[in-house]
Amino acid sequence: MTRFEVKTTARNQFVEITAQVRDAVTASGVRSGLCVVYCPHTTAAITANENADPDVVHDMLLYLNRAVPKDQAGFRHGEGNSDSHIKASLVGPSVTLIVDAGDVVLGRWQGVYFCEFDGPRTRTVMVRVVG
Amino acid sequence: MTRFEVKTTARNQFVEITAQVRDAVTASGVRSGLCVVYCPHTTAAITANENADPDVVHDMLLYLNRAVPKDQAGFRHGEGNSDSHIKASLVGPSVTLIVDAGDVVLGRWQGVYFCEFDGPRTRTVMVRVVG
Amino acid sequence: MTRFEVKTTARNQFVEITAQVRDAVTASGVRSGLCVVYCPHTTAAITANENADPDVVHDMLLYLNRAVPKDQAGFRHGEGNSDSHIKASLVGPSVTLIVDAGDVVLGRWQGVYFCEFDGPRTRTVMVRVVG
Repeated sequence: MTRFEVKTTARNQFVEITAQVRDAVTASGVRSGLCVVYCPHTTAAITANENADPDVVHDMLLYLNRAVPKDQAGFRHGEGNSDSHIKASLVGPSVTLIVDAGDVVLGRWQGVYFCEFDGPRTRTVMVRVVG
Repeated sequence: MTRFEVKTTARNQFVEITAQVRDAVTASGVRSGLCVVYCPHTTAAITANENADPDVVHDMLLYLNRAVPKDQAGFRHGEGNSDSHIKASLVGPSVTLIVDAGDVVLGRWQGVYFCEFDGPRTRTVMVRVVG
Repeated sequence: MTRFEVKTTARNQFVEITAQVRDAVTASGVRSGLCVVYCPHTTAAITANENADPDVVHDMLLYLNRAVPKDQAGFRHGEGNSDSHIKASLVGPSVTLIVDAGDVVLGRWQGVYFCEFDGPRTRTVMVRVVG
């Protein structure tokens, strides 16, 4: 298992981690199998989406922040970050990628993102590759 | 493959299943690999999120029920549980966890939840561990 | 790894791919393990949900199109398909299924769907089975 840190600088932010994931696959020596990128935090998530035009991430965050407002009538959790927990479960705590020829198989426009929903913080990402 | 039952008592409810998942990993004898927790139902889901403060689950359910109302103009499905199917696909039918040193790797505040969206029912959860 | 194509005919559409996934598992020869169904596109997704009553898919698409409108104030991405990217990350780029007795384990009402959110297009789906 590989672990690496991601330092985020905003409350809501997507940080691309494709290079770190690729490095973990190379280090594993696995040529053919699966790669799980896992987020051990409850107010952050992992996704795969477009890494060509940064406006896509801008629009995704704009939507998520509007669709899941920070303060909502009836919320009880005292830390005031229930929206962060909700976004985390909607996007999901991991992605499972296919490994072929010693590398993760990604679409032409796909990158892997760490999704921060309660930053800024220093976060951990875990990667497991199985053959 | 391990199967276990979850009895739910409300239409919308999160039931923590971390202990059952851990038991399945122990029973598998796998020390290092992956663990998939799978929901074979179409109106329920699996997620990982905070298990320290129960108010987090309260707020997540409050949000989901508001964001995906039971009755919506234009809905056609005769069973009246289209909201349940929608919540199921938004949260997702499984989580994939990393197994290390014979146990699932979870963050300090993370638990695994069975998410009921059309209860009360008796449900089945499946767990597969691969080395 | 198996690849197959899906031709979609509408901007938003769910296409059932359960048969193709089952064929990939059979072709792999794996009797017991995991099966990852992966979407290498950034405006499409994979889910498992009901395949008995087509009204369920109708209602899911109705909801998603209402909850994530195509044009939203503040969107910057020039292609005008930010809603497609958002839906893709909410539903997710893959499903991980359990393989037992040489077949994927699905619930009685579950089918696997390719979820098109920016069609019509010809898309690729990738399937990896590990033992």
